Amino acid sequence: MCRWIAYTGKPIFLDRLVTQPAHSLVKQSLDSKLNITASGKLLTTNGDGFGIGWYGSHDDPGLFKDDLPAWHDENLKHICHQVKSHTFFAHIRATTTGDIQRTNCHPFSYKNWLFQHNDHVTQFESIRRELQLDIEPSLFPELKGTTDSETFFLLALTYGLTERPKEALQRMVKRVLKALRNNDPTGALNLSCALSDGKTLYTLRFSYNEEAMTQFYSTHSHCFGDFEGPDEKMPSESTVVVSEPLDKASEKWTEIPNNTFTTVVKNNVTIEPFLDESEADSV
Amino acid sequence: MCRWIAYTGKPIFLDRLVTQPAHSLVKQSLDSKLNITASGKLLTTNGDGFGIGWYGSHDDPGLFKDDLPAWHDENLKHICHQVKSHTFFAHIRATTTGDIQRTNCHPFSYKNWLFQHNDHVTQFESIRRELQLDIEPSLFPELKGTTDSETFFLLALTYGLTERPKEALQRMVKRVLKALRNNDPTGALNLSCALSDGKTLYTLRFSYNEEAMTQFYSTHSHCFGDFEGPDEKMPSESTVVVSEPLDKASEKWTEIPNNTFTTVVKNNVTIEPFLDESEADSV
Amino acid sequence: MCRWIAYTGKPIFLDRLVTQPAHSLVKQSLDSKLNITASGKLLTTNGDGFGIGWYGSHDDPGLFKDDLPAWHDENLKHICHQVKSHTFFAHIRATTTGDIQRTNCHPFSYKNWLFQHNDHVTQFESIRRELQLDIEPSLFPELKGTTDSETFFLLALTYGLTERPKEALQRMVKRVLKALRNNDPTGALNLSCALSDGKTLYTLRFSYNEEAMTQFYSTHSHCFGDFEGPDEKMPSESTVVVSEPLDKASEKWTEIPNNTFTTVVKNNVTIEPFLDESEADSV
Amino acid sequence: MCRWIAYTGKPIFLDRLVTQPAHSLVKQSLDSKLNITASGKLLTTNGDGFGIGWYGSHDDPGLFKDDLPAWHDENLKHICHQVKSHTFFAHIRATTTGDIQRTNCHPFSYKNWLFQHNDHVTQFESIRRELQLDIEPSLFPELKGTTDSETFFLLALTYGLTERPKEALQRMVKRVLKALRNNDPTGALNLSCALSDGKTLYTLRFSYNEEAMTQFYSTHSHCFGDFEGPDEKMPSESTVVVSEPLDKASEKWTEIPNNTFTTVVKNNVTIEPFLDESEADSV
Repeated sequence: MCRWIAYTGKPIFLDRLVTQPAHSLVKQSLDSKLNITASGKLLTTNGDGFGIGWYGSHDDPGLFKDDLPAWHDENLKHICHQVKSHTFFAHIRATTTGDIQRTNCHPFSYKNWLFQHNDHVTQFESIRRELQLDIEPSLFPELKGTTDSETFFLLALTYGLTERPKEALQRMVKRVLKALRNNDPTGALNLSCALSDGKTLYTLRFSYNEEAMTQFYSTHSHCFGDFEGPDEKMPSESTVVVSEPLDKASEKWTEIPNNTFTTVVKNNVTIEPFLDESEADSV
Repeated sequence: MCRWIAYTGKPIFLDRLVTQPAHSLVKQSLDSKLNITASGKLLTTNGDGFGIGWYGSHDDPGLFKDDLPAWHDENLKHICHQVKSHTFFAHIRATTTGDIQRTNCHPFSYKNWLFQHNDHVTQFESIRRELQLDIEPSLFPELKGTTDSETFFLLALTYGLTERPKEALQRMVKRVLKALRNNDPTGALNLSCALSDGKTLYTLRFSYNEEAMTQFYSTHSHCFGDFEGPDEKMPSESTVVVSEPLDKASEKWTEIPNNTFTTVVKNNVTIEPFLDESEADSV
Repeated sequence: MCRWIAYTGKPIFLDRLVTQPAHSLVKQSLDSKLNITASGKLLTTNGDGFGIGWYGSHDDPGLFKDDLPAWHDENLKHICHQVKSHTFFAHIRATTTGDIQRTNCHPFSYKNWLFQHNDHVTQFESIRRELQLDIEPSLFPELKGTTDSETFFLLALTYGLTERPKEALQRMVKRVLKALRNNDPTGALNLSCALSDGKTLYTLRFSYNEEAMTQFYSTHSHCFGDFEGPDEKMPSESTVVVSEPLDKASEKWTEIPNNTFTTVVKNNVTIEPFLDESEADSV
Repeated sequence: MCRWIAYTGKPIFLDRLVTQPAHSLVKQSLDSKLNITASGKLLTTNGDGFGIGWYGSHDDPGLFKDDLPAWHDENLKHICHQVKSHTFFAHIRATTTGDIQRTNCHPFSYKNWLFQHNDHVTQFESIRRELQLDIEPSLFPELKGTTDSETFFLLALTYGLTERPKEALQRMVKRVLKALRNNDPTGALNLSCALSDGKTLYTLRFSYNEEAMTQFYSTHSHCFGDFEGPDEKMPSESTVVVSEPLDKASEKWTEIPNNTFTTVVKNNVTIEPFLDESEADSV
């Protein structure tokens, strides 16, 4: 259960989204509004580490992560104030189990790819070994932490993420569902993911046996919200996808439906169905 | 704005108070109930570091502090599970300004003394220099961080804390009030402190121009709350003082009145008036 | 490549070994003398985290770890000054690869067992997956970090460490040798381990295809070294095992031969051969 | 006692100096060669935190600091690989006393100014209070840590650093010398500083009662050293100043004389005398 944002379009300074908006990601680290757990409880605090990933002059993205809360981090403020990027991710973590360490912070990277998500999987510890065995052996050394997220990313890479993202995610989700059901037929899987190769932004919203986590996008020039100043507008030909809106004026935000795969290039947003219900049920 | 507990009496493991109770200090780090800011807002998250101080075989207390949130800290769990003490303090920090670093975490120590508090002072930065100049030069090297708390402790030491605790705190409070009023006549000072020399536990509750922060004590054998197991009782001849009760059954807790100085030896609790109103107004 | 100490006998404060001796473990963190790498270089700095594990009133040991250097750590100084134990471990880490995080710091624990070591394995990343697949599935959730050390510990637990420590370590070493040889016939394995269940202290010194890492023990009352003061002596009926002596007077220390398994109860030290050469060669 | 580099000229990625050279700053963090303490001992390890400061699109510099060793820090590697700057500082810290915390890491900043140094002052704790009292009250809230370095920077700002850097540093040095002598007539002061407003780079090398710390500059296109690859050259019209050379070929480096103030614009290096001996002696 975490919060994240993903941006693609004209280069902007990261603080435009990460720290400045009325309900910026950093503000969500202390006071998120839509982070509902499976038991229906609102999780306002996302203080178990944070990370940003951005594309600059190189093909491979930059990464900056720490295991501290985002709300008072001076490094984060400085880097977001100085770094400009056409495509970037930012993530704040909330975990009810698991270790608080940088290697468990999102986004995760592999070559020119970035991956981040918020999710809920019933009893991940019981299926972790089975899923990690399916990771391509040459990718196994990439496994640095203990999160479900990293395992899902490495599984998707195993299944061809860099070539066919949607198909790889479909295989990954079906593989996880299979493990989940063998372990606990009533178990839930709930995923809200963002991925990028530095050119295209992809997102997935999928839930099984549980109400889906929220996911929104906006291409509206005023979606950053109520804060003041000369730079308040989002550039044209740009899109931001978020786990919850960055302002209080949610009419500028479009909710992405559950069980969909979204492809974003500049401000072109294409939303496709992800898995057939029958597919999900038959794995 | 922070939360704390202080215990004195028969030796117990620290986890009996710090992690086990229904509304233990560690649980308060994510979900405190009475941490009301000056603007009337409830501050549920106390995630800006933590610390414990305990008296064991030596005269000088042990200290363990970190700048991480308490809620998932494995070191804290281990140490509180292993360490037994007759008198100990524990503190979780919430700051709206200021650096998150171990030297800013409570409790502070000087020789055999421990000090911790939660407080609110209007515009401390404007009076910090003036107050730090009053610190006895030989104590100045003890200044390691940037908190108001540490400055207040060193001022109280300057004014004779180790000999006459109440008088030293009175002088300290009057000195701070004087600086405060010169700077801003409408400014507020709000203090809830615990101190000990390893034998006696002292607390102060004092507010000026603001509703006082809460402070409670209990000598009740079931004040730890609703948690189960064979060790649920607080030992006889023991007292715990807290910023908010450790259970939901607050009838086992006695609120300590505002503007009082409290002395605790075992389960003998003596509450005295602290400053005359005229004294506070005339500084 | 790390440094460690292990003590068993009459209860002493941890600082007697960890911080006070002339060449204490904390001093070794900046200036170790016998930490020779496979390439023959002296590794003086062991600054990639540290940890202590100790047995107190409970069956399960206490653990305190951090990913910072030990040399200036105030928490470590305080805890070692306050905590008394009959059997304890302390470890400082030096890694040339791998993540610096608390979950990679020694000692590792499982129920009432502690484990720590210094080692060198050629290309561990190439055999990590194979070895981790051999971990008993019910123990797999214990895997929290990415070190070879933790994998070796969980393998030994899989092979019955808690029942027959020597046999379990033999199976573990043979299993690792097999993986190593399949991957690189010229590869080296070099282990210097300490283990305990809180009653008995066991150590292993074993090397293959490489000069063995040093391991010493002492039961001498003056083995702590040259430092002054009334408490300078090690208690009678006690033993300390180290990766390098704690003083400059090494005649008080006995080198433990390579390829041996050592059992220590109080000051009774039993050294047995570990693996037949033919066994090591035939796996 | 620390190590640092400062660069000004054509924009380059920070890793060109911080991580890539044969004897890069990150390599110096484990193995510096010229970091000689007052007692003549070589201090090879600089593991008590690090920091970088760089000028980008804004007037105010970016800052990234951590209290961990630089040698394995993934954030540092990423940021230095992604960030390009025309003028930047990098610093690794070694302290024999004092707290390891981010607020004690260099560089320090004030508005558009950066400051870093390595130094040695005899018994700074004894003169700290006196010097901090001389800080302009409006600058006092900038005091966040406990280092001599930060105090010297704030004193220099008090004395007009942003208007007349050389004069302000002269006043600062004379003020420190005065305090030093009153406290201990045999005391030493040893400073090697770098400052910038984002346009000009200034350095100071000054020692009193002690052999001066080293300081070198180079405008040589091959001064980065022996490492391979297409990008090995330093750009034309650029200068790097260091506490020790970044390669083993020191003929490409010019030692800056003691007791001088250096002004660098692009590759124009002007070295002036700093204090008359009589001035230093008469304060």
